[in-house]
Formats: sequence, C-alpha cells, structure tokens
Amino acid sequence: MSFGRVAIIGLGLLGGSIGLAIRQHLPGVTTTGYDADPAVRLRAGERRLADRICASAEEAVKDADLVIFCVPVGAMGAAARDCAGALKPGVVVSDVGSSKATITEALCAALPGLAVIPAHPVAGTENSGPDAGFASLFQQRWCIITPPEGADRKQVDQLIDFWEALGAMVETMSAPHHDRVLAVTSHIPHLIAYTIVGTASDLEEVTRSEVIKYSAGGFRDFTRIAASDPTMWRDVFLNNREAVLDMLDRFLTDLAHMRESIIAGDGEAMFDLFTRTRAIRRSIVALGQDDARPDFGRSDHEG
Amino acid sequence: MSFGRVAIIGLGLLGGSIGLAIRQHLPGVTTTGYDADPAVRLRAGERRLADRICASAEEAVKDADLVIFCVPVGAMGAAARDCAGALKPGVVVSDVGSSKATITEALCAALPGLAVIPAHPVAGTENSGPDAGFASLFQQRWCIITPPEGADRKQVDQLIDFWEALGAMVETMSAPHHDRVLAVTSHIPHLIAYTIVGTASDLEEVTRSEVIKYSAGGFRDFTRIAASDPTMWRDVFLNNREAVLDMLDRFLTDLAHMRESIIAGDGEAMFDLFTRTRAIRRSIVALGQDDARPDFGRSDHEG
Repeated sequence: MSFGRVAIIGLGLLGGSIGLAIRQHLPGVTTTGYDADPAVRLRAGERRLADRICASAEEAVKDADLVIFCVPVGAMGAAARDCAGALKPGVVVSDVGSSKATITEALCAALPGLAVIPAHPVAGTENSGPDAGFASLFQQRWCIITPPEGADRKQVDQLIDFWEALGAMVETMSAPHHDRVLAVTSHIPHLIAYTIVGTASDLEEVTRSEVIKYSAGGFRDFTRIAASDPTMWRDVFLNNREAVLDMLDRFLTDLAHMRESIIAGDGEAMFDLFTRTRAIRRSIVALGQDDARPDFGRSDHEG
Repeated sequence: MSFGRVAIIGLGLLGGSIGLAIRQHLPGVTTTGYDADPAVRLRAGERRLADRICASAEEAVKDADLVIFCVPVGAMGAAARDCAGALKPGVVVSDVGSSKATITEALCAALPGLAVIPAHPVAGTENSGPDAGFASLFQQRWCIITPPEGADRKQVDQLIDFWEALGAMVETMSAPHHDRVLAVTSHIPHLIAYTIVGTASDLEEVTRSEVIKYSAGGFRDFTRIAASDPTMWRDVFLNNREAVLDMLDRFLTDLAHMRESIIAGDGEAMFDLFTRTRAIRRSIVALGQDDARPDFGRSDHEG
C-alpha cells in the first residue's frame, strides 16, 4: 500500500467505516482521525475508529500520505481550509461525498497546488454518527473515483488500490457524469422518500398511527431511506442542484403519464411498465448489489 | 375455531401463505385450494399449500365454512361467480385484496344474500406465485377487516379470531377509509417506485448498467417494490382510482415545494423536512413494523 499513513477527517458512518476497514484489511497502515465535534471524537476513541484520534485537524493530517474528508458536502471546503497549512507535499487529498463537481471545486480552491482526487463509495445505511460505521461497509460495493483533468495517473492508481483493498470495486468517470448517475440512483430516490414520508405525516383524515401500523404495505421501505442524515442530504441537494432538477423533471413527466393512465383506466400501460421494472430488479440481485431474499430477508429474521 | 373447513381460491403468495399458516396454527382446520392455472395447482399440491387441491372452484368451496378469495382485485367478481352455485348456506366469504370498496361491491353483487366480510392482511413480499408463500407471513402484521353495513357481528368476530390465530393483529374500519389509508401506505409508494425505476431504465446518458451498479445509493430499495406482481398492482390502481389520485396529488404538491426549495437553495426547508421524517421511521421500528437493523440487515448477511 502506497499510503502508509491515512488521515480521516469526519468520523461518522463513512469515516468510521474507513478507519475500521483499514484496520481489518491494511494492518500496516497507520490511521489518524479528527472530528469537529468533541463528543464524536470521544466516542471514536472508544470504538477505535482510528489508531489515534487527534484534537485538531492539523495534527491529524500533518504526516498523512492520504487525507480523506468524510464531512457533509457543504462542509468540505471549510474542513480543507482548516488543515491546509499542515498538509505535507505529495499528499493525496480525497473525500467520500455524494456530489463530485462542487466538491472538486471546493477542495481545489482550498488546497491550490495539491493533488485532489475525489471519490465516492456508493455504500451506506440509514444510520449516522460515530456508532454507525462498520468494517464491511464497502465489501462488494462500487467506489467511483472522479480524477480531475491533469490528475497524476500514478496517484489515481494508488487510490484505486486503496479502495480495492477495503473490499470495493472501483470505476472512474468524470465528476459531471457521476453527478448525473447518482442523481438518479441515489439523490432522487432520497428526495422522493423524504417527500412521501412528509406527505403521509401531514394527512388529517389518515392518522399518523395508521400510517405507522400499515406501513408494511410498502411505505416502511421509504421511511428507511427518509431516516438518513438530514445535514448530509440537505447539502447533496444544494450541491447537485442541476442534475437533481433535471432527473426530477423526467420523473415528474413519467409520473404524469402514470396519472393519466390511472384516470383513463389504461391497464395495459400500467401492466407494461410494471413488467419492465421487474427485469431491473433481477439484474441488481444477479450482480450482487442486493440481497435476493424476499422482503430483504425480514421474514427470515422475524419468522 | 368456528371455521372447520376453509377454502382458498387463488394459490399465490397470499393464498399459499394462508394455507401454510392454517396447517401450522390451526391443525384442526381442513383446507381445500383451487387456482385457475393448472401449473399453479400442480405446484401447490407439491408444496401442500392446502390439504386438498381441487380441480374446480366449485369442488373446493362446496363444504367450506369460510371461503377466501386470494386472486387479483380485478378477478374477484369472476372468481366469486364461478363458485356461487356451490357455496353452502351460512358460509362466510372473505378475500385478501388491497382495495376494499370495489371488491365489496363485486363480491356482494356476485353472491347476493351471502355473508361477505372483506379483509386485507397488510403483509407481503415482492415475490408472487405458488412458491412465494410461507407460514409466518402474517406474524406481527396487521389485518384490516372492513365489515359492510349490516354484517353479522358474530361472523365478524369469527373472522377476527381466524386472523389472530394465524398470527395477525386485527383492526376493523370502513372500506372507504381503508382505501384512503392504503393509498398512502402502500399504493402511492408502489406507484412511485414503479415510475422511478421506469425513468431510470429509459435514460440515454446514464446506462442501465450504471443504474444497476450504483443502485446501492438508494435506488435498489425502490426496485424491490417495483418487482411486485404486475397484474395485482394494475388491478389495485384501476380499482382504487379516486383515493390513489387524491393522495398522488398531495404528494405532487409536496414534491413541487421541494423542487422550489432546491431551486431557491432553501436548505432550511429541506433540513426541517428531513428531520421530521426520521421520527416516523423510529415509530415504525418501535412498534415492530420493521427491522431495526441498519440497511434492513443486509450488511449482517453480506459482511
């Protein structure tokens, strides 16, 4: 492993999981960790999310070969500025944020002349904070690396090796393309889930207790996504605005068509769509990106 | 148990699960089963979904004290007409359909003078067919019974006892109220999931392979719901049209607000919504209606 010392800035679900995964898969690598919240630093120390939890960002990064920012998208620039003076020459700077174009800009602006190679491991759960991380989070998951123009090929390869060592499969693409892909596979699903859960909570003639009791009809799957970290997701929508709005408008157009089919009683149009969508599910399961057990295996657990 | 003989018409996920649950929880009850598809009857016999699989609906129902129609909503009336001549006096007729007002009408029209007491166990998985059922499907799940005006209280209580014996918790309400509650907790979530999976499959600049690879960002949860039985769901939307359209319009209004918040860069409005929705998730887990393990326990399984 080319990176002997890795600094993790932000010790929530992603940062914590990286620290634990390094200890499991890369025992020769030393980790330092920092979080702006003292309570998170304390808990991170108890869970040993990094070998050494530091009292400042500068201290955490000063000997690091690789620094990974694991803070909400909107906090990346400030987090980078906080440790800009302490970074050593030749360091590789990366992150785990869900929208890449604005993050690349923010990191490059905060750290002029340094090697910035953004990354996004497409993995997570609805939990957040220093108790949420676990070493196997990246197993069999994709990590997308978005090297800016002119990035050093050797450093990009080193970052690829690093993520593969943690169990991820790696793909590279441009930041704008990443932002469009993730708008549809992640951002719009979250926006829709948050919204329908809000709609359901605000109804008057259907009580909240009814919504909760009968959530097994499908709604509960949306509530899982809608339990994700609010700060993280606010920042994603503020930072990937253009791609999100474009994909949202396509979804709204398709939803308007379905609405028309319901009004017209056009069962054939519905049946056609509902048949096509099954194939996508099968591919996702076949490619190991979801559990094949029905109902996410809930019944195995409960039954 | 007041019902010594139970006939199950339709041997898919729900019908099969009822048969298996009766064998497990009500060993004194005899079951007969029928499905219009000969291949399903064959497989149902192999899996012993009912004690006796019959070659006609009339044969299946002729001695039954309780007949449960487990066919798609749009097929209820025809299925009832098929066996109308063979039902014995005093039989209780029920079903498991997801929209109650139109089913009640169809069953009462097909079986004048008989006791029709519709029910809806709010339970299921994305799988369908005679291999999909399992005995524990109804454990800790709600079953909603919608007794028509003038229903015999004793018979309603017998049906409540029956569902409780299979492990369900029972609530009664009017059919129109059921249809509004389920529109929001089940029908709209399915409509949205089918639609976004369709939108994602039709994109040109984001390939289907990319959609599948990066589905762990949230999209894959929607694909599970969008893999549900197309015939069943087509019929739900055709039969619960009014409530679905009303709830859809509320959702669209809320989504338009979120769209405006994104355009305006109004992070506060987003943060407020994303915080409120977490509370609903907590209640669902607290009330045993979903698994508390993060990511539906996928990581336990994969890790």
